Amino acid sequence: MLKWSISTASLGGTLEAKLMAVAKAGFRAVELFENDLTFFNGSPRDVRRMAEGLGLEIVALQPLRDFEAMPEPQRARNLERASRKLDLMDELGTRLLCVCSNVAPEALDGVERAAADLALLADRAQARGLRIGYQALAWGTHVREWTQAWDIVRLADRPNLGLVLDSFHTLVRNGPIETISSLPGDRIALVQIADAPALVMDPMSLSRHHRCFPGQGDWPIEPFLEAVVRTGYSGPVSLVIFNDQFRGASVSGIALDGMRSLELCGEALRRAHPSVTVPATPSGAPMPPPAQVRGIEFVEFASGGKEAGRLAKLLEGLGFARAGHHRSKDIDLYRQNDVNIVVNRETDSFAHSFFLVHGTSVCAMALRFDEPERALERANALGSSTYYGRIGQGETLIPAIAGIENSLIYFVPAPGARSGPSIWERDFVPLGPTVPGPLTRIDHFSNVVRRGEFLTWLLFYKAMFGFVSEPQIELADPYGALSSRVVRSRDGQIRIPLNVAEGGSTAAVSFMGAFGGAGIQQIALETANLLDFVERARDRGVSFLDIPKNYYEDLGARFDIPAPALERMRELNVLYDRGQAGGEFFHAYTATFEDRFFFEIVERRNYDLFGAANTPVRLAAQANARAASSFEVLARTL
Amino acid sequence: MLKWSISTASLGGTLEAKLMAVAKAGFRAVELFENDLTFFNGSPRDVRRMAEGLGLEIVALQPLRDFEAMPEPQRARNLERASRKLDLMDELGTRLLCVCSNVAPEALDGVERAAADLALLADRAQARGLRIGYQALAWGTHVREWTQAWDIVRLADRPNLGLVLDSFHTLVRNGPIETISSLPGDRIALVQIADAPALVMDPMSLSRHHRCFPGQGDWPIEPFLEAVVRTGYSGPVSLVIFNDQFRGASVSGIALDGMRSLELCGEALRRAHPSVTVPATPSGAPMPPPAQVRGIEFVEFASGGKEAGRLAKLLEGLGFARAGHHRSKDIDLYRQNDVNIVVNRETDSFAHSFFLVHGTSVCAMALRFDEPERALERANALGSSTYYGRIGQGETLIPAIAGIENSLIYFVPAPGARSGPSIWERDFVPLGPTVPGPLTRIDHFSNVVRRGEFLTWLLFYKAMFGFVSEPQIELADPYGALSSRVVRSRDGQIRIPLNVAEGGSTAAVSFMGAFGGAGIQQIALETANLLDFVERARDRGVSFLDIPKNYYEDLGARFDIPAPALERMRELNVLYDRGQAGGEFFHAYTATFEDRFFFEIVERRNYDLFGAANTPVRLAAQANARAASSFEVLARTL
Repeated sequence: MLKWSISTASLGGTLEAKLMAVAKAGFRAVELFENDLTFFNGSPRDVRRMAEGLGLEIVALQPLRDFEAMPEPQRARNLERASRKLDLMDELGTRLLCVCSNVAPEALDGVERAAADLALLADRAQARGLRIGYQALAWGTHVREWTQAWDIVRLADRPNLGLVLDSFHTLVRNGPIETISSLPGDRIALVQIADAPALVMDPMSLSRHHRCFPGQGDWPIEPFLEAVVRTGYSGPVSLVIFNDQFRGASVSGIALDGMRSLELCGEALRRAHPSVTVPATPSGAPMPPPAQVRGIEFVEFASGGKEAGRLAKLLEGLGFARAGHHRSKDIDLYRQNDVNIVVNRETDSFAHSFFLVHGTSVCAMALRFDEPERALERANALGSSTYYGRIGQGETLIPAIAGIENSLIYFVPAPGARSGPSIWERDFVPLGPTVPGPLTRIDHFSNVVRRGEFLTWLLFYKAMFGFVSEPQIELADPYGALSSRVVRSRDGQIRIPLNVAEGGSTAAVSFMGAFGGAGIQQIALETANLLDFVERARDRGVSFLDIPKNYYEDLGARFDIPAPALERMRELNVLYDRGQAGGEFFHAYTATFEDRFFFEIVERRNYDLFGAANTPVRLAAQANARAASSFEVLARTL
Repeated sequence: MLKWSISTASLGGTLEAKLMAVAKAGFRAVELFENDLTFFNGSPRDVRRMAEGLGLEIVALQPLRDFEAMPEPQRARNLERASRKLDLMDELGTRLLCVCSNVAPEALDGVERAAADLALLADRAQARGLRIGYQALAWGTHVREWTQAWDIVRLADRPNLGLVLDSFHTLVRNGPIETISSLPGDRIALVQIADAPALVMDPMSLSRHHRCFPGQGDWPIEPFLEAVVRTGYSGPVSLVIFNDQFRGASVSGIALDGMRSLELCGEALRRAHPSVTVPATPSGAPMPPPAQVRGIEFVEFASGGKEAGRLAKLLEGLGFARAGHHRSKDIDLYRQNDVNIVVNRETDSFAHSFFLVHGTSVCAMALRFDEPERALERANALGSSTYYGRIGQGETLIPAIAGIENSLIYFVPAPGARSGPSIWERDFVPLGPTVPGPLTRIDHFSNVVRRGEFLTWLLFYKAMFGFVSEPQIELADPYGALSSRVVRSRDGQIRIPLNVAEGGSTAAVSFMGAFGGAGIQQIALETANLLDFVERARDRGVSFLDIPKNYYEDLGARFDIPAPALERMRELNVLYDRGQAGGEFFHAYTATFEDRFFFEIVERRNYDLFGAANTPVRLAAQANARAASSFEVLARTL
C-alpha cells in the first residue's frame, strides 16, 4: 500500500510549525529535510517526540550530499560524516537515509567506486538496522539519470540499499518513464514527486523556484506514478517541492494543497489500476468522483448603505428587473433569462461581514450540480468543510464551502436533478412577471488572486469540481504584467480566468487594494446584440469604459470592417476580435464600481475565446480611468 | 554622431507620463511603441505636439507586425494596413516605420516574397518621404537572424529601406556580432539595444520579463555596439526593454537609469574608439572616468531618544570608544582603528528626519576618493545632484549625493589626497586618546533593496563609482528566498551585497517593514580573533544571534575541527566556513537592533568570500529570533 508523505522542504517556517501543519492536513508520514534538522533549536530526540506526538512517521532523512566516489582523503571524511548522520537517525527514529548523487566537481567517474562507497555505507547502516536510498540528481557530476543510479545500486548489491525515484529529476531531463515499471518494486527505497510548469529554463532554476504539486504544473506525473505502481512498489510517495512561494505562503494552506494533490494522484492511479490500494482520505470518508457541474445558479453580491442603491441602479441599467424579494431576509433577486443576481443587504449575516471587509462585492456564487450531495462529499473528503447559513422556517438549506478569500460556493441541484420547488419558488416572493431581457447567461467571471495563492486556487478548482485548466497567458498592463490562466468545467459552461497581478499599480493590484484581498473582479454576461445593448444601457445611465479612439484606427487597419460599423463601435466603446475561423467577438466593459468590479458584456458569433488581444487595451483604458478619477478626487480635495 | 533614444515600451504608465520622464532624464529622442499610440486618448497630432514641446524627436514608430510574405488575400490587406500606418506617421512627425519579421504561422518562406513586399511598402513610404526599417525577431516564423533580414533588405534594394539591428534578438540566438561591422553603416536604419541576465530560458519569456538596460545584465552589449560603430552608423541607439518590473516602477527613475546606462555605453565606446562621437551628457558637462575609491571613511547612524542610548551601549560593547564630539552638533564619533562610526542625534537635520522615518539606522556613509571632485563631477553628469549639509563656521563642507532610500553618500578625500586637517581634526573635539581596539576595518555592508529597484542600484554603483558586480546567488530563507548580488570596488576594498527579498516574512522583508523601505541591514567588521572578541563583547553585555545547536553537529561532520574548538564555537554562536584552498572564515552576528540592522563580526584567514553557505543558517536563526520576540511581545500583552 502506498503512503502519502511530504518533505519538510516543501513548507515554510519553523520545523515545529511544519510538522503541525503536515499532521493537520491529514498526513501520517513526513520526510525530514536535513536543513530543517540543522536549523531546529532542539535535539533529534525532540524532533522524534514531536513527530510521534503528532502521529507522523519520519519516512526518511534526506539528503546526504556529495558522498560517493570522492578521492581520498575526502572519501574517508565522508564515511565519517555519514556515520554521524546514521547515529542521528536512531535518535530521530527514522530508518531511511537518502543519498543524492554527487555534484562536487572533484567526484570521480565510474560506477564501481560509487557502488563500493554505497556498499560500505549500507553495511554500516545494516549494523544499526537502517536503510540507504540512492538518488540521481539531474545536475549530478556524473550520475544524472535514475538508470545510472540503478546500475550503481545493483552493483553495490546490498539488501538494505535501494533506489530513490524522483519525478522532477527524471522528467526535467526527459528521462525514461516507461522502463521504471520493469524495476523490482522492493528495490525502490522511496518515491519523490514534484510537478513543474512547462517552462524552458535551466534545470536548477526550475527546481529551485518553480517546482509545484502534481496537478499545479504540466508534467506527466500520472504516467510516472503508474510506472511506479506497476513495479509492485509499496511505500511512501513523498512531495518534495522547493518553491520560494510555498515557503512564503501559509504553511497549513500549502500542506492542505499537498494532501489534495496526492488525493488527485491516488484517484488517477485507481482509475488506471483498480487493483492499486491508495491511502484513505484523512477523514476516512470515501472521495467520490467529481459531480457534473451544470452552470451557475446565481451570483450573490453583498452590499449595503448608499452603495446598494448604486448597485441596484447599475443592475437596472443593464436591463435586470427586480424579480423577487426573499421571504425572511433583505435580499433582492435580479433576473434576466438564465442570469440570477442576488443582492444581500442583510445586516446580520455572512454577507454583511463580507461587505464590511470588502465593500460591495461578490460574496458568493451557486453552482448547479447533477448530484450536489456527491459534490459536497467530495469537497469534504478534500478537506473543505460544509458551511450552512441561517435560514427561516420552511426555507431551503443550501450547503456551501469556502472559496477565494472566504467567499462562498453554494451547491444547488441542477433543474433536472431537483425534486420539489426551486429556491426561488420556495424562498422568494415574486415581484411581477419575469421579463426576458437582453442578457441571456453568465459567460464567465474572473478572479484576481494573490501571486502566492495562484497555484492553490488552480488546484482547488481542479480538485473540487474536476475542472481543467488552459495554458497560462501573459499580458501587458501599463503598470506591470498580468498572468492569466483559465480554469473551466469540462463542458466549457463555466470558465474562470484566474488573474495574477505583478507590478506597482496594475489593474489587478489596484483591485486587491480596493477590495482588501483577492476576489471576483469581473462578471461577463452574454447578449445577442451588443451594440444595441450598450446603446440602450447607456441611455439608461450606465457608464461604460472609455476606449482610446486610436484603438479603432488600428482595428480598421487590421480588419475589414465597414466604416459605419467601425464608427458605431467607436462611439459605443465596443471592442472587437475575430478568430482564426472568422468567428466574431464584440465586448464592452462597464465603468469600474468603486475600483472593485465591473461587468463585461459580450456577444459571441462562433467565437469561443475571451478576446485576449484586447486585454491590454482594456487594461490601458482602466489605467486611464483610474488616473482620471484620482485627478478628480484631488481636484475635489484642493 | 550617435543619438541616445529610448522606446516608450521600456516605461510604465500613460504616454504623457512616459514622454515627460524621458525628456526629464535628458533624452532628445524617443521611439514610439505602437501600443502606446493605440492606448493614448488623443490624436497622433497631439502626440507630435507633446513630443515637440518636450524637445523630443520621435525617431521611429515600431513595430508593424506580421506584414511581409503573407499569402493573399492577407497580403493585400496588410499593404492596406501598412498604408494607414504611413498616414499616421506624417501626423506623428516621425519618418521611420519599423517592420519586424513575421511570426504568423501562415507566413511564406523565401526571401523573394518578403523582399518584394518590403520593396512595395518602401515605395509607398518613399512617396510620403518616409523610411522603412526591417528587423529579425528571434522567434520569427522564417526570418530570425539579422543576416537573413539583411539578405531581404539587400534584395529589395530600395534607398529608403534599411536594416534594424537589435542586440537582444541577435544575442539571444548567439547570432554573429563581429560580421555586423562589415555592413554599410548607411543601410542601418536603427539600432536597438537591450541587455539580459545570464539565464537559460526560452527567448520569448526572457524577452518579456527579463530584458534590462545595458550594464544591468550579463550580455556582451559593448562588442555589439563596437561592431555597429565600425560600420560608420550614425543614428539613434534606442533602448527597447520589455520588463514588467520596469513598468511597475517609477517612470522617471527608470528613464534616468536608461540615460545612465547609455552614458556608460558611450564611455565604453569612446574608450575603444576614441574617434567616435557620442552624445553629450544631458547637462552638457563632461563625464570624467570614475575616481579611485579608497575605502570607507565613516558610517553615520541617525538616532535619538532612548534608542541612542541603546546604540551607544551596543557600540561600546563592541569595543568602540567615544573618540570625539562634534564642535557644533550633537554628533559622536566612535572609533576603533580604521572604523569610524558617527552617531547623529541632531534634532534639526537631515539625519533627524531620516531617524523619524526609519528609526535608528544608517543614514549616510562616506567614501574616500583619490579625487573626490572628479567623482562628484561624474555623479553630477550621471544625473545625481550634489547635496551640502548645514555646517558651522570653519567646519568642513562635505558634498554628498543621494543613495538608497535617499540615504547620503559623502565624498571625502583619501588621506593621501588631502591637504590640510581631516574632518575629525577640524570638526570634532577629541575625547581622550584613541585606543586601537580589536575591530580593524569595515569588511562589508549589505543593502536590502526592493525587488523593483534591484537593477537601479546595481547600475548606480557601477555607473557612479566604477564598481563591478559578481554573479547573482540565490539563498533559501525559511519564509521565502533571498537573491543576492555583490557590487564591489575594483580593488575589492568595498563590497556591498545587494539583497532582494522574496516571500511572505523573510528576514529582508521583515527588515523593510521595520525600516520603512530599503537600506543597510548589516555592517560587517573585521577582527583578528573572533572567538576572543565574542567572549569579551558578550561579557560587556552584547547579545549575539543564537545559532541552532544542530548546526555544530553538521559542522563537525563536514569539517575536521577539534572537539574543544567546535565546542567553543557552539558556546559562542560562531559560524564557520572553509574555502576550497583551505582558507578559514569565522563569523558571528549581533542580535538585531529593533528588527532593523545588525553587526556581523568576521575573522578571515586567507578567505575572501562571505560564508554564503552559512546564510541559510543565519536566516533560520533570525527567523527563530523573530518568532521568539513576537512571542515575548504577545506574552507581555496578554
